Amino acid sequence: MSQLPTIAVTMGDPAGIGPEVCLDLLANEEVARFCTPIVFGNREVLEACADRTGKQPPPKPVPEGDLLTCETPAVFEVGDLTMGDFSPGEVNAATGKAGYDCIIKSIDLAMDGVVDGVATAPIHKEALRAAGILHPGHTEIFAERTGAEKSCMMMTSDLITCSLVTVHVGYQEVPELLTEERILEVMDLTREAMCRIRGREPKLVVCGLNPHAGEGGLFGNREEERLIQPAIESARAAGAQVEGPLPPDTAFLDWRRAETDAYICMYHDQGLIPLKALAFDTAINVTLGLPIVRTSVDHGTALDIAWQGKAKSSSLVEAVRLAAKLSADRKSQQG
Amino acid sequence: MSQLPTIAVTMGDPAGIGPEVCLDLLANEEVARFCTPIVFGNREVLEACADRTGKQPPPKPVPEGDLLTCETPAVFEVGDLTMGDFSPGEVNAATGKAGYDCIIKSIDLAMDGVVDGVATAPIHKEALRAAGILHPGHTEIFAERTGAEKSCMMMTSDLITCSLVTVHVGYQEVPELLTEERILEVMDLTREAMCRIRGREPKLVVCGLNPHAGEGGLFGNREEERLIQPAIESARAAGAQVEGPLPPDTAFLDWRRAETDAYICMYHDQGLIPLKALAFDTAINVTLGLPIVRTSVDHGTALDIAWQGKAKSSSLVEAVRLAAKLSADRKSQQG
Repeated sequence: MSQLPTIAVTMGDPAGIGPEVCLDLLANEEVARFCTPIVFGNREVLEACADRTGKQPPPKPVPEGDLLTCETPAVFEVGDLTMGDFSPGEVNAATGKAGYDCIIKSIDLAMDGVVDGVATAPIHKEALRAAGILHPGHTEIFAERTGAEKSCMMMTSDLITCSLVTVHVGYQEVPELLTEERILEVMDLTREAMCRIRGREPKLVVCGLNPHAGEGGLFGNREEERLIQPAIESARAAGAQVEGPLPPDTAFLDWRRAETDAYICMYHDQGLIPLKALAFDTAINVTLGLPIVRTSVDHGTALDIAWQGKAKSSSLVEAVRLAAKLSADRKSQQG
Repeated sequence: MSQLPTIAVTMGDPAGIGPEVCLDLLANEEVARFCTPIVFGNREVLEACADRTGKQPPPKPVPEGDLLTCETPAVFEVGDLTMGDFSPGEVNAATGKAGYDCIIKSIDLAMDGVVDGVATAPIHKEALRAAGILHPGHTEIFAERTGAEKSCMMMTSDLITCSLVTVHVGYQEVPELLTEERILEVMDLTREAMCRIRGREPKLVVCGLNPHAGEGGLFGNREEERLIQPAIESARAAGAQVEGPLPPDTAFLDWRRAETDAYICMYHDQGLIPLKALAFDTAINVTLGLPIVRTSVDHGTALDIAWQGKAKSSSLVEAVRLAAKLSADRKSQQG
């Protein structure tokens, strides 16, 4: 058996840039040296995309029974979407369902140990909804399907890493979702993941919720004193290196970023505004707390440039690289 | 009479880095070529600070009656703080009051036309509170004292400029403070200011409130459709170049920043997280909508390094430069 981890790579929404970045990935010789990538998708769609963009055609599909022993980049057929069901650049219920089916299959095979980790190409929320799937995103689908009791979304890059205490909820709903337990949970998950990624105890920074972190109760409802500070103290008692709660607007200054391994952010845009302003195109999304390894690209379906051969596969390559690294670490821990 | 604008420069909290950066400013020959800076503060404090840090002593104070005709950098005495009243690095009620008195005097003399604009060094909110002054910051003091009916805070730099629809309020209070009128007001004020700064019609971007700008009502209470979109349409009808409401996390990607003159942000950290991550040390705070010109440094009192000669005056120099530019433009408009 191969010593390289096998990474399931979901093709994403077929109408977006997923198929073409998957084709690049399958043809990438460097990737094949650190893992065996298996694209979960539709051969017909991938072949049509290769034809349209002039890229190298995909390798032949591998049957499910051979997945465990597959040692070369391959395609794994999921569903029966055909080119007659959609037009590139236009999402619909059929592409939403096709993207979803690949995710579900990859999760199930990862749970069964047939693949060692999953990296996902982008799906489109409107297409998902058109297909009757109401999850707001990948993270929620993975958490539900794997039965994870606790999980969180972390975006990581060389420049900046952010974990989110709350993610896909309205601005107004954030304060009521913040609890000391949840903040501590995200700190614990992030600490563990960054230990694996950096190979040492990471330095964490926790942001406040309010401007100036509340400035001693001047702004907000003392969420910093009531919820964030106690969570930080619990984490410290367990040996974590944590600073905070810091004023969010100065938490991301360059000198502080340089000495911070990961930020714990209270809401979606608190973490993703600085992360995308600084590290768009290189950041990888990791779902922490799952019983399986799952990473994802940072970008969306980019329908406006889909199937034109313009999309870059660098983010998917990095997502697969991180999935392979985390899979290998997990194996060595278990082994 | 000199053709250069006279800029009142408030010394800020005497225990912070305000005095030393004001000393640098007064000795800066380049500054004296584009304006006449008058530091509003205490001569004894400035002289003690020069002595402590080895900087050039301040020029002699100018009496109030001579301010209008003063053509060289000078000090204008406000209040009677002495070195016995405080220790550098430690704020208290006396330093809070001294900082506040300088602000009030500068506003009054600007309203009277004795000075052409005001640039402020940092004050300390705890010291203000200790002195019984409950304004959360400069912006609010200026708005109240000048009787401005509408005003907003804008932070500007070469890399990124952000105006804030809400500023110093708790996270939870933001949604209830957002109205179509207020969003339009901030767009109008920003458009006018950036027209003066850039000398042409600026390109504005308005951020949504919710993750993904609500994603069509999926997250939040449709603040984007109910409040932000109508304000944008009104601004467009008045000739503004505006895009939005954009998903906040991708609004600040580098390619979009390159083609955006100013962002309209719904809350403090939405604008100040990316601004400080990208342009700390070069951004200037401008209060828009006042009957007088007012700019400020981006940094705080930095008590930990105060009176050690380590503080850089670059931000104050840029604040004074922008105040001089806006004053000159205003004069030419009035003239």
